[in-house]
Amino acid sequence: MNTEELKEILSKISSGDISVEEGTEILRDLPFKELGYAKIDNHREVRVGYPEVIYCEGKTVEQVKGIIEFMLTKNNNILGTRASEEMYEAVKTICPEVEYNKLARTLTIRKKEIKAPETYIAVVTAGTSDIPVAEEAAITAEILGNRVERIFDVGVAGIHRLFNRIDLIRGARAVVVVAGMEGALASVVGGLVDKPVIAVPTSIGYGANFGGLSALLAMLNSCASGVSVVNIDNGFGAGYMASMINKL
Amino acid sequence: MNTEELKEILSKISSGDISVEEGTEILRDLPFKELGYAKIDNHREVRVGYPEVIYCEGKTVEQVKGIIEFMLTKNNNILGTRASEEMYEAVKTICPEVEYNKLARTLTIRKKEIKAPETYIAVVTAGTSDIPVAEEAAITAEILGNRVERIFDVGVAGIHRLFNRIDLIRGARAVVVVAGMEGALASVVGGLVDKPVIAVPTSIGYGANFGGLSALLAMLNSCASGVSVVNIDNGFGAGYMASMINKL
Amino acid sequence: MNTEELKEILSKISSGDISVEEGTEILRDLPFKELGYAKIDNHREVRVGYPEVIYCEGKTVEQVKGIIEFMLTKNNNILGTRASEEMYEAVKTICPEVEYNKLARTLTIRKKEIKAPETYIAVVTAGTSDIPVAEEAAITAEILGNRVERIFDVGVAGIHRLFNRIDLIRGARAVVVVAGMEGALASVVGGLVDKPVIAVPTSIGYGANFGGLSALLAMLNSCASGVSVVNIDNGFGAGYMASMINKL
Amino acid sequence: MNTEELKEILSKISSGDISVEEGTEILRDLPFKELGYAKIDNHREVRVGYPEVIYCEGKTVEQVKGIIEFMLTKNNNILGTRASEEMYEAVKTICPEVEYNKLARTLTIRKKEIKAPETYIAVVTAGTSDIPVAEEAAITAEILGNRVERIFDVGVAGIHRLFNRIDLIRGARAVVVVAGMEGALASVVGGLVDKPVIAVPTSIGYGANFGGLSALLAMLNSCASGVSVVNIDNGFGAGYMASMINKL
Amino acid sequence: MNTEELKEILSKISSGDISVEEGTEILRDLPFKELGYAKIDNHREVRVGYPEVIYCEGKTVEQVKGIIEFMLTKNNNILGTRASEEMYEAVKTICPEVEYNKLARTLTIRKKEIKAPETYIAVVTAGTSDIPVAEEAAITAEILGNRVERIFDVGVAGIHRLFNRIDLIRGARAVVVVAGMEGALASVVGGLVDKPVIAVPTSIGYGANFGGLSALLAMLNSCASGVSVVNIDNGFGAGYMASMINKL
Amino acid sequence: MNTEELKEILSKISSGDISVEEGTEILRDLPFKELGYAKIDNHREVRVGYPEVIYCEGKTVEQVKGIIEFMLTKNNNILGTRASEEMYEAVKTICPEVEYNKLARTLTIRKKEIKAPETYIAVVTAGTSDIPVAEEAAITAEILGNRVERIFDVGVAGIHRLFNRIDLIRGARAVVVVAGMEGALASVVGGLVDKPVIAVPTSIGYGANFGGLSALLAMLNSCASGVSVVNIDNGFGAGYMASMINKL
Amino acid sequence: MNTEELKEILSKISSGDISVEEGTEILRDLPFKELGYAKIDNHREVRVGYPEVIYCEGKTVEQVKGIIEFMLTKNNNILGTRASEEMYEAVKTICPEVEYNKLARTLTIRKKEIKAPETYIAVVTAGTSDIPVAEEAAITAEILGNRVERIFDVGVAGIHRLFNRIDLIRGARAVVVVAGMEGALASVVGGLVDKPVIAVPTSIGYGANFGGLSALLAMLNSCASGVSVVNIDNGFGAGYMASMINKL
Amino acid sequence: MNTEELKEILSKISSGDISVEEGTEILRDLPFKELGYAKIDNHREVRVGYPEVIYCEGKTVEQVKGIIEFMLTKNNNILGTRASEEMYEAVKTICPEVEYNKLARTLTIRKKEIKAPETYIAVVTAGTSDIPVAEEAAITAEILGNRVERIFDVGVAGIHRLFNRIDLIRGARAVVVVAGMEGALASVVGGLVDKPVIAVPTSIGYGANFGGLSALLAMLNSCASGVSVVNIDNGFGAGYMASMINKL
Repeated sequence: MNTEELKEILSKISSGDISVEEGTEILRDLPFKELGYAKIDNHREVRVGYPEVIYCEGKTVEQVKGIIEFMLTKNNNILGTRASEEMYEAVKTICPEVEYNKLARTLTIRKKEIKAPETYIAVVTAGTSDIPVAEEAAITAEILGNRVERIFDVGVAGIHRLFNRIDLIRGARAVVVVAGMEGALASVVGGLVDKPVIAVPTSIGYGANFGGLSALLAMLNSCASGVSVVNIDNGFGAGYMASMINKL
Repeated sequence: MNTEELKEILSKISSGDISVEEGTEILRDLPFKELGYAKIDNHREVRVGYPEVIYCEGKTVEQVKGIIEFMLTKNNNILGTRASEEMYEAVKTICPEVEYNKLARTLTIRKKEIKAPETYIAVVTAGTSDIPVAEEAAITAEILGNRVERIFDVGVAGIHRLFNRIDLIRGARAVVVVAGMEGALASVVGGLVDKPVIAVPTSIGYGANFGGLSALLAMLNSCASGVSVVNIDNGFGAGYMASMINKL
Repeated sequence: MNTEELKEILSKISSGDISVEEGTEILRDLPFKELGYAKIDNHREVRVGYPEVIYCEGKTVEQVKGIIEFMLTKNNNILGTRASEEMYEAVKTICPEVEYNKLARTLTIRKKEIKAPETYIAVVTAGTSDIPVAEEAAITAEILGNRVERIFDVGVAGIHRLFNRIDLIRGARAVVVVAGMEGALASVVGGLVDKPVIAVPTSIGYGANFGGLSALLAMLNSCASGVSVVNIDNGFGAGYMASMINKL
Repeated sequence: MNTEELKEILSKISSGDISVEEGTEILRDLPFKELGYAKIDNHREVRVGYPEVIYCEGKTVEQVKGIIEFMLTKNNNILGTRASEEMYEAVKTICPEVEYNKLARTLTIRKKEIKAPETYIAVVTAGTSDIPVAEEAAITAEILGNRVERIFDVGVAGIHRLFNRIDLIRGARAVVVVAGMEGALASVVGGLVDKPVIAVPTSIGYGANFGGLSALLAMLNSCASGVSVVNIDNGFGAGYMASMINKL
Repeated sequence: MNTEELKEILSKISSGDISVEEGTEILRDLPFKELGYAKIDNHREVRVGYPEVIYCEGKTVEQVKGIIEFMLTKNNNILGTRASEEMYEAVKTICPEVEYNKLARTLTIRKKEIKAPETYIAVVTAGTSDIPVAEEAAITAEILGNRVERIFDVGVAGIHRLFNRIDLIRGARAVVVVAGMEGALASVVGGLVDKPVIAVPTSIGYGANFGGLSALLAMLNSCASGVSVVNIDNGFGAGYMASMINKL
Repeated sequence: MNTEELKEILSKISSGDISVEEGTEILRDLPFKELGYAKIDNHREVRVGYPEVIYCEGKTVEQVKGIIEFMLTKNNNILGTRASEEMYEAVKTICPEVEYNKLARTLTIRKKEIKAPETYIAVVTAGTSDIPVAEEAAITAEILGNRVERIFDVGVAGIHRLFNRIDLIRGARAVVVVAGMEGALASVVGGLVDKPVIAVPTSIGYGANFGGLSALLAMLNSCASGVSVVNIDNGFGAGYMASMINKL
Repeated sequence: MNTEELKEILSKISSGDISVEEGTEILRDLPFKELGYAKIDNHREVRVGYPEVIYCEGKTVEQVKGIIEFMLTKNNNILGTRASEEMYEAVKTICPEVEYNKLARTLTIRKKEIKAPETYIAVVTAGTSDIPVAEEAAITAEILGNRVERIFDVGVAGIHRLFNRIDLIRGARAVVVVAGMEGALASVVGGLVDKPVIAVPTSIGYGANFGGLSALLAMLNSCASGVSVVNIDNGFGAGYMASMINKL
Repeated sequence: MNTEELKEILSKISSGDISVEEGTEILRDLPFKELGYAKIDNHREVRVGYPEVIYCEGKTVEQVKGIIEFMLTKNNNILGTRASEEMYEAVKTICPEVEYNKLARTLTIRKKEIKAPETYIAVVTAGTSDIPVAEEAAITAEILGNRVERIFDVGVAGIHRLFNRIDLIRGARAVVVVAGMEGALASVVGGLVDKPVIAVPTSIGYGANFGGLSALLAMLNSCASGVSVVNIDNGFGAGYMASMINKL
């Protein structure tokens, strides 16, 4: 339930179109729904503009299913990240139209159409191995109602591939750059575009990569301005941030 | 054997109700029981108020069973933490009433009733994924003879859920806050209550979470006063500390 | 020189209003100006929308003065960060209207008026000690042509101070949150507003703060969505990013 | 202003002993006092039981003086930690009775007598070099209204010194253990007493001490139960926590 | 081949008891035996007093078997550390008397009796979970020809268990202390005995133990003198060092 | 396609031996080939002298096969590193002459003979366990057209083994030193030869080895001059660098 | 007072040569002397064989002077480490024969002659910059009654310098190896001698030396057996350990 | 003394042009010169091609002067790195022609002309602040007899500056890339040239730069091939390595 919808219900109560009892029923779970193991934040869309997203890792299959079961009673799109195939199978039994992206490990259920703005988000990767994280970003942005352009495998080892696509990247309203290893792509893109760059370090690499630390530190220390950083492998966070910017 | 019980035996020896030989038999293992691979600290309850707890990780199934076998000869409640299901099965063969909490991975055997104080301990989590650690804390506090209130999934991303339960938290004599990721909940709770807060960082999260380091550092650096910290995922330690405080 | 100005010169050359020789003279330094120890990136404004900013740390007083001396020949606003008072004194000899903010350690020279958008940027700090970094962010945003609202000392240890100002923060188009210690403020604000949050960890704190690492990790692991992070103490980076977003 | 005092004022307003105008004047700053660079949390005592403490590091002398100047208008004891001698000199000009402990770097102003409980807090150090941190803990506990016993230089290299004082330590209601280097004292004390132990790692040591990291990790990994930890060198935090426990 | 044996062969060559051709055959591999994937250091015993030990981890089963096959042609005791059961099975096919300690993961083959000195080595552990590392140390010392006393599970959480065995520890010529978690036992023992203490940190523990880092740092920072440290879980290294000292 | 081949094609177009249409067809993919999930850098050989190498880790079997399928249409030698056996099986279906080195985990396809220079590269390891990384270096150098001498297991614990082979090492034009644990071999070799040494730290070791960090730091801090370092376990990088130097 | 001296006094009391009152006076401070800020461990020599050593860092000049003033009342040699020149000046006023080594920063007072064993300790450094730490080790060993041979600047960058002195090193009963940077010397020496090697990493070096971490990790991971390690720059600890071994 | 010079002397001895006594005098110090605090490695040039270089940090002024005093007796060029101005003043008293580069902190004395090869070394920096390290590299390469091209301030934030100079870089035989912050320049250059790249991370930057760690990790993880890395701020090491390669 977003702010518009909330206002409409309150107007109807005010005008008597909805009785106080009916209104109470509708709004009872507004602040949050208590499930015991979880308190689903129904108020979230009113407060920050989007419904709650389910971070599935560390939850049991039953918990994920239970949370989605409740969320289905609301008229919202649903996004689950870091979901296992087993979770997908469980959710499918209560919602056959759920989609699962194996690479990005996302569950998506589309209940209402969100009109996308004219502008788009560019999701760029340094290598092929960075694609799963990039897909998480892209799918997040899409379910939140954005158009996304994917530009994959344009890392600085062959920088002409980047220049070949630079106009598409420059045309975006927000740019997500996904890179592992030394993460240099974020700085190079940051030096070439005049739009906010959201950098996502990935854990791709080995040895002194230390699980993505090398790319993380590189991106935080970017010599280019206009680059901010999210957590290692956090495609969701980058897609969400880019969506926020794209919809301003 | 606690200090009361020890005094009683010594009085009986003094009065002749128990012969010296009988007394020797009873007290022989008092300092510790030598099992070869372990020296069970029977003196512990006299010294610090609670019997020894078995940290099962790194021990073989046979060792855990052997230690419990000996402890059963004493009239104490028994707690095993980080126990596997295999250990549970082995212990059940010698003690059918043993209970196993799969989530918290605890073994519990109740041999005597401990009168709980009037006051209670609040165990609070930021998210659903923090529940296993929280349960370890809660079960520890309960077996040590405390009443526990569980308040789960009230993390700062939807802070109104916390405010909704704040009176229950404020009513406790000691508060255990369990949180992963950025661990902000400990500071927020610490700023809202006037009771000692025991913060437990969890390894929930990914990327620059570094196995719980992010929450650990955050909690150690809490801007709120009255917050102290135990090891990452150490629900037992927090439950024990809270019990100590609750029973002062 | 921005894209508009460049187009105008080229049009004048095309129409003969400016001779090819005059045009060459004007545009000669366009890609960059070679100073030996530095190559000033004059092309930057065309490419990313803002002129180059001088990061003064690690440069000699003479180098900073030399770079500004050249930049003064262009009609641009000038920003120097991490500047010492000695640098300020040196620059004043060639540009008396230079301003120095002692707390933020910024040099600013205003050569042209930039029309600020209607919307504003909120710069929020957890404590008083975070103000120098926050001022660097605010001054950066202002020299780049934005209106800034400062909300200082609203950290989570006394969270009612934050709620008292929450409407002013929610009204911004982009929010910069500056916090040291455990950096929890970024997550709390991120959970309360529907605008992009740029989090700046500061090195304020001691012990296991490790020079800002605690706040950095906390912010990267924020459980709230819509939070991205810049380098420790990097007020400039946050102000720049916020300006980019505010001007979209 | 604590809860008792607040109730009294409200009763007087209710009974007409204080006019609404007078009441407004008295209570106007209740939530916090806005100083621009700081928002003093006057509501804190109502909420968590103690007035706000000033962490002086990172603040200018003027800011510290300004904050204390305002706090002096309330009838509270005042504690400033990590204060420089220069700050002390500045505060003395507006409050001659301020006291400064050079070792602990604390500013203290006693405005009202707080009745200490019967029980006391033990502050224990491993070595002589740990005394400054221990003094910060002890002074904090004392200004908050507690009796403190100091037991210094009883580290495990000469463990008989500890056993010599063990009864004094066991008699306390809460024990603060301050140790650098390998921090082993916390575990040894934790294994000997049945009271909550607050461990404070110090940065005393060199080489692989890494600024207190060795003691911090050791204390977090204590094999003894009933030990929780505060930040490196955070004597204040330990003293505050111990006070909370002692006053339960 | 040790120095004594080498001298004897050379004497026999000198006296003609062994022909030059025979001597060449015997001594050909003295510096090292080339196996392609390994160069077995036959000269080692002459140089440092003990034959080479096989560190099995990272080697294939075939490589371990091949190395032992060659070493069996010499009249030496053989020790393989970090050996898998599969390696044991492979070696058994060429040397049925090989022994395998499952806990310590050692392979041992006794080919000649080494007369042990009168003095003994004490191997002490903090907990039951440290026993595998302690066994690696003990077995190493034994195969090198030393008498070993094992004192297990005397960690500082129940320090009276240590005092109960302190005379046995004090009687040793060298003491190996094996401890995980906070590793405090090394400092406590170091403060109680007047013999060299070799401390072995173990990776036992969890959370901020960071794979043994907490115990390692604690032991390196021991406040007790006469404590030196080997690598985490390096029972072999400690047993070897203790043997060297015991045989001086 | 290298620079020579490119010039030849352009000459033929210029002379009319190849029509413009034919030339377009040949050169169409020159900058890179778009595969969607990858952009194969065909221009690489022109730019840096060698064709692109496939880093297989993090790619799916299908992606690796698809990339090689395209590369086979060019007349180049192909190298895949960090390849699984499953990848090898998949590639064999489209290219039966592909070779797989199980130890080094490399895929190699030889399509054209590269004339090796007279000089050779020495690949040296400290131990047997370092051989897989050394083989990756050696195979890389060989497929790039170099002669390689392998000198394995000459670590400093038995330094006479190194001196025995020192002339072979000194005779090389570039030396690759592969070592785990403390990585001392790089410094010792660096102090003995007058040729560039490329040091490769390996993750061989345990405990405070921290996945190769000990050897990495040691090599970076080498007291010998003429030593530079590549990433942990990066045999490919060392072989490539050595090849570059050998071919100058 | 050592064990011999203690026995003698007790014998005299037993035989009446010393009255009980006199004996009480003599033995009153035996366990420790309470100075308030310090508890001097007089019992130490009885327990571990040497009197207490003063670690001066972190103590005030007055405290160091006070501790030495008391210790002078006993007939012991005195060693202060990490002492400043100011401390030396203060001690000289109460004990003119105190000696100060500026490089090693040691205070030494010789009150009784200790007969050194026949055997000696070798103190070896990799470079000139490691000498201060080596001198701390050598002076410690000397004051404890050992003969020391110094072999400086024989690092592996010019390994022939080491071989030139190897016989002197091999002749020692214990070897202290002091090295910074990559610390390779410890492994090389460990592979060449059959005596215990105490390795001391120093903080000499820069960049990725990280204050001695590189040498520390290298030494802990030494591929040579018979090497144990003390803290970074801990010359005292190494000298003490070597003395213990030399006197067995 | 290099190999050529050594051969010549030996020939003259052989032919009787130099008497054995004269020869002994000349060659006496060949292996090394013992100065007590240092053993100067005269043999080094014979062994690795260049005379020893003096790393001045951690040495006293007197030691540096003494070492140079001896080296002046040989006919070699002398290089001292990390030298203070005070050292320069001291050396000038014994060698007036010594030169000091304040930025690079190098001492240089040219005693003989070394013929530089035709080819040159490119020394490239990302920013102005990296120049001191770059100058150390350039001066090292020059004193060792190489021609150097300096290309400064071409970092990726304005990548067109790099492309403007790319031909000069491509023309070099070896390329030194000096960069702090995120160190991305090394990867970008590595992807554009076909010559060995020696990457030097600098400690330029702040916050999560962690003293150069960000650039170091980035360079070790470079996605471009043909990049190897030296220690943070180690301009000398890079210049030396590049010289080795340039002279092959």
